[in-house]
Amino acid sequence: MSDRYEVRLSGAGGQGLVLAGVILAEAAALYDGINAVQTQSYGPEARGGASKSEVIISDSDIDYPKATAIDLLLCLTQEACDKYTDDLKEKGIIIADSRMVKELPDGNYTIYSLPIIDTAKEKVGKTFVANIVALGVIAHLAEKVSFDSVLQAVLSRVPKGTEDLNKRALQLGYELIG
Amino acid sequence: MSDRYEVRLSGAGGQGLVLAGVILAEAAALYDGINAVQTQSYGPEARGGASKSEVIISDSDIDYPKATAIDLLLCLTQEACDKYTDDLKEKGIIIADSRMVKELPDGNYTIYSLPIIDTAKEKVGKTFVANIVALGVIAHLAEKVSFDSVLQAVLSRVPKGTEDLNKRALQLGYELIG
Repeated sequence: MSDRYEVRLSGAGGQGLVLAGVILAEAAALYDGINAVQTQSYGPEARGGASKSEVIISDSDIDYPKATAIDLLLCLTQEACDKYTDDLKEKGIIIADSRMVKELPDGNYTIYSLPIIDTAKEKVGKTFVANIVALGVIAHLAEKVSFDSVLQAVLSRVPKGTEDLNKRALQLGYELIG
Repeated sequence: MSDRYEVRLSGAGGQGLVLAGVILAEAAALYDGINAVQTQSYGPEARGGASKSEVIISDSDIDYPKATAIDLLLCLTQEACDKYTDDLKEKGIIIADSRMVKELPDGNYTIYSLPIIDTAKEKVGKTFVANIVALGVIAHLAEKVSFDSVLQAVLSRVPKGTEDLNKRALQLGYELIG
């Protein structure tokens, strides 16, 4: 199972996490040529406004598509960070929005607190590309997916006419980590 | 497991099956108040152009999110119909596009061969709403999701300005079965 890489994207409904999950899975599968499964689970908590999307990437077949030992967790809201830290691996990575997430979990994790939403709002001018800024960060940190693959997947999924905006968002996200 | 309802949406990349799966899961979870998991698996076949999206709906918790005994299979291309009939339950339902799928599988299934793509193209005037026409058919046939819930989920997911078009597509799909 060591070649299995698990990502959970969490936040609130409306932040585009389903689309981000689809893009990440397609980057891995269609452009990097490895297997990917992308899942949304909607339980009672979804009706409270929290949202999550998971992506499993693996060189081998993926028999069990739910995340069980998460390598990388994105949290765009405090509520999501409180709710979805379960299943994060020891030494796993947390990427948290620095404005929204003020209380980070204790534990043996690598935490990046980054201005994801502010970057979308102030540098791109559109808060709704925060999901793409986050994908830029993930492309920097996640094993198994390359920036170019994520870029191709972004460009094939976003609405026509928004390609430049989204490319800029992805690039700025990538550069949030030195 | 008797309250578990499994749907697989299959066709080609670009037909909007990921979005259709997300809408169906959100209809069930956010508007009908039951649990749902929605999955895309990308393996080597995805790079050949076939595409599938799965939705599991259940009153109980969904421990295993992959489809294993499918109640309802949508096929929008012949290739998808050839590839993804595995795991369809005995007496399961197949909804096949009547123009694209000419060879239907043998077996103890209930088959609806319907002009889904032609309805999108000729009656709505936009081939890209074929996925929404298909959701209308599914809303008619699937247990556990209501037309109104699917409509609400469609309206919350489609691009602004296309609501009327998509509502019409959904309604026409619903009416394809007498």
